[in-house]
Amino acid sequence: VSQLSDIGEDALIERLIRLVPCDPQPAAGPGDDCAVVDPGPESPTLLLLKTDALVCNVHFLPETPARAVGWKAVARVVSDFAAMGGRPERFLVTVALPADTAVSWVEDLYRGIGDCLRTFGSVLAGGETSRVPQGSAPVISISATGSVPRDHLVLRSTAKPGQVLLVTGTLGGSLREKHLRFTPRIQEAHWLATHFKPAAMMDLSDGLAKDLPRLAAASGCGFRVDRDALPLTPGCLVADAMGDGEDFELLMAIAPDRLPHLLPAWHEQFPDLPLTVIGRLVAPGAGEDIKGGWDHFRTC
Amino acid sequence: VSQLSDIGEDALIERLIRLVPCDPQPAAGPGDDCAVVDPGPESPTLLLLKTDALVCNVHFLPETPARAVGWKAVARVVSDFAAMGGRPERFLVTVALPADTAVSWVEDLYRGIGDCLRTFGSVLAGGETSRVPQGSAPVISISATGSVPRDHLVLRSTAKPGQVLLVTGTLGGSLREKHLRFTPRIQEAHWLATHFKPAAMMDLSDGLAKDLPRLAAASGCGFRVDRDALPLTPGCLVADAMGDGEDFELLMAIAPDRLPHLLPAWHEQFPDLPLTVIGRLVAPGAGEDIKGGWDHFRTC
Repeated sequence: VSQLSDIGEDALIERLIRLVPCDPQPAAGPGDDCAVVDPGPESPTLLLLKTDALVCNVHFLPETPARAVGWKAVARVVSDFAAMGGRPERFLVTVALPADTAVSWVEDLYRGIGDCLRTFGSVLAGGETSRVPQGSAPVISISATGSVPRDHLVLRSTAKPGQVLLVTGTLGGSLREKHLRFTPRIQEAHWLATHFKPAAMMDLSDGLAKDLPRLAAASGCGFRVDRDALPLTPGCLVADAMGDGEDFELLMAIAPDRLPHLLPAWHEQFPDLPLTVIGRLVAPGAGEDIKGGWDHFRTC
Repeated sequence: VSQLSDIGEDALIERLIRLVPCDPQPAAGPGDDCAVVDPGPESPTLLLLKTDALVCNVHFLPETPARAVGWKAVARVVSDFAAMGGRPERFLVTVALPADTAVSWVEDLYRGIGDCLRTFGSVLAGGETSRVPQGSAPVISISATGSVPRDHLVLRSTAKPGQVLLVTGTLGGSLREKHLRFTPRIQEAHWLATHFKPAAMMDLSDGLAKDLPRLAAASGCGFRVDRDALPLTPGCLVADAMGDGEDFELLMAIAPDRLPHLLPAWHEQFPDLPLTVIGRLVAPGAGEDIKGGWDHFRTC
């Protein structure tokens, strides 16, 4: 019998979405960072929807401070709204916990959730609490609604061969606690969508090696990465930048003739955050193949 | 150290919502079946949001057919939209599963999800898959958006002393597989909201003994239940009707002078589904106290 570990996450999702009715006219394909709903031509904004989950011993450890877990749970979702050029608005929080969980742990978790909601101007709209059997891993599932002005929407499927690839920040090193302390690039994505709208964008959650092929495939392109150009988190190697995952930086494709304007404007606007050209998109089949990155159901 | 099992679900939620920013002007209080968002006075409908979760060995068993689990996961959420007088529209599905889960199990789960989405005219808008550690309970977390015409919205907090309490269907016996096969009362709730709008309504998910005190407390009322009048599922006792939970029937409060019109019209419209007067709301402090029903974190 075939198990999830045999086929991996992307193949699983492809099989599952065939089994359920989906939006007949989605504004974004399945697999983009958020689902996009068009409320109708009179609406100046589009509705964004996102769901995500954190699991103990997968995304955090039993000894991880609960407040940091709460921040991370919300910040991961905020990062997906950034990747679409939008903003999150209302959050739904589901926690499934063993009955012997300390009340103070859950309160700290919610303090961290509150920290992140306040930082990004969002609110809790609802939630659910459930028990898991004794010994089962706690699960925190976060869903959110948000919005994006119609002309700010950036998909991952709309890049073209010849465009250059850029990333914000530095890559690699998530396990050395970066994954608990990152700042979603909402402000930067908003600035980009307003002034230098990328042709395509996504956030790096599973590592460049996993996510870049996804952006390229969604856009029907190949890609080439300049490994020497990768902005490495201090102490990290190229392999870490490719495969660690949980960078929560933005990966984008932009027409090369915009770079002479974009790069100086970026450095003036965000002097402390690198924006680095790391490669380019090419015709399908003309690119390279990379393996690795985070897959939930395979051993990597 | 205080544990979740010491304080129970309702007290936990009360403590948690103080720790996070909430909607400054919610159209429904926390604890109603769905969160209600008012998109602005020009919108004829209100936005509804809901999140819920199913956990293996809590809400279903490892041997429960996966297709029935999928139906139940979605149907529980549909029932919450019914309880507000609204309809669900777009679903987000998060599954957290061990890596050795059979692919066919997950496919059957999604077939059941698809069955229920199609039955109620909803679609899947997005989702997430995550691994849980080996041996941990699978968790299925479902979120959904929906809508309700402004004048159809029914809260649980707007009942008044003197109103009668009614329930649809029969109560008790959920464990004998009723909890896997129930039909959310979307059609009935829509008819009620259109023709005999209840003063307050909720769906019975944790048992009358748990849910009726919630409706009464939200409305600032006491209550009296006529135990002899409870519509029992065949083979069930009053205690089952009070405490089994997962009936997913509607509980509502209606002015007594509407009964002579409501009851004949209901029986003509829904000849196969009982609608039963089970008690009334009284002044706060003048009612009875009941204990029991389902609490996630306490032994009941």
